[in-house]
Amino acid sequence: MTIQLSAFKSIPDFARGQVRDLRVRWALEEAGIPYTTKLLGQGEQKSEPYVTDWQPFGQVPAIHEDGLHMFESGAIVLHIGETSDVLLPKDPAGRARATQWLLCALNTMEVVIQQYASINIFFANEEWAKLRKPSLEEQMKGRLHALSKALGSKDWLDARFTAGDLLMITVLRILNGTNFLDATPNLVAYKKRGEARSAFQRALNAQIADIEGTRSAA
Amino acid sequence: MTIQLSAFKSIPDFARGQVRDLRVRWALEEAGIPYTTKLLGQGEQKSEPYVTDWQPFGQVPAIHEDGLHMFESGAIVLHIGETSDVLLPKDPAGRARATQWLLCALNTMEVVIQQYASINIFFANEEWAKLRKPSLEEQMKGRLHALSKALGSKDWLDARFTAGDLLMITVLRILNGTNFLDATPNLVAYKKRGEARSAFQRALNAQIADIEGTRSAA
Repeated sequence: MTIQLSAFKSIPDFARGQVRDLRVRWALEEAGIPYTTKLLGQGEQKSEPYVTDWQPFGQVPAIHEDGLHMFESGAIVLHIGETSDVLLPKDPAGRARATQWLLCALNTMEVVIQQYASINIFFANEEWAKLRKPSLEEQMKGRLHALSKALGSKDWLDARFTAGDLLMITVLRILNGTNFLDATPNLVAYKKRGEARSAFQRALNAQIADIEGTRSAA
Repeated sequence: MTIQLSAFKSIPDFARGQVRDLRVRWALEEAGIPYTTKLLGQGEQKSEPYVTDWQPFGQVPAIHEDGLHMFESGAIVLHIGETSDVLLPKDPAGRARATQWLLCALNTMEVVIQQYASINIFFANEEWAKLRKPSLEEQMKGRLHALSKALGSKDWLDARFTAGDLLMITVLRILNGTNFLDATPNLVAYKKRGEARSAFQRALNAQIADIEGTRSAA
């Protein structure tokens, strides 16, 4: 299996360690699968041939794997999980719950957390963003509280680390630099536990090295 | 396999045919799997024992299937797809692309379309919603245009109907009652093609019958 992953050559400071290719790199590191990168210059993700060959919405990440072209970070992580039970347990119930937490990360948590991040980063000076912020914060706090309760005193959302935790931790990292997790210390510890994994460290270092132009070819 | 699905006993008019349990009902109908429903009274989804036993975020749908409890409509559809190649092709590349479109429906399209629906339904009188609407409409139009281009003249997003189309069509249905799809006639035809499937019709009828109290037990 030969995987090439799309990523950015350069990004603004606020996006360091946040671009979604990190999720795919982390999954590949957990699965022990080597990869190369296709690094995109500024605006290249919105232009041909990338939008036709790689990602129709002009986003990162996407992969080319032999004959398969695919995008959506969550789907790519599930696809990698097919070959690695570190990410997806083989038993159907464990696999279903890992998939549930992956979708929960994207469709229950990120959907709110990313709105909050966008308000702070892209729309900070817009009047609507200032007016919207308090109610969005309340919604986000409610979801973080529910997630904290679901995690409880466990190390991971299910009995052991899965692709669900991988996605959830990358979503919680969107809140880096804010104090929103402080009210839920078990989520702070959970995020640290994920970031301490050697596969996460290798993935983050590779992403930064690609941006700084210091990564050697895989 | 015995599946019980959570759904609402009564809903406001704007939510008719929109509540997310429709996705799971549709998938079960495509797969030919019978199910029963656990119907929730007003507010019951936010209370115990539902939030502990069924859905930690107090939402619909969730399922109980023998020993497995799970939530997130997208994850439940993927889980049902494990037992039905109508939903998920058996070949790894076809399966990867079906999963890609399912995630695209939820994490690229719904993430924007649902914000738009919320602005119109829940926040219509809020000043921030009025100010936010134009830029959100532009973003939504851009994504619909990209999706239309990816669909092209095909009947389905991949070579044949999959779980990816099922999710995408339920997401496009959130725009029912607006004219946003009119600019992309292939998406209008695509949505109709999905809604014309007998499994969709049975799912929609069952959801409405549960709300009207006229559904017979499965």
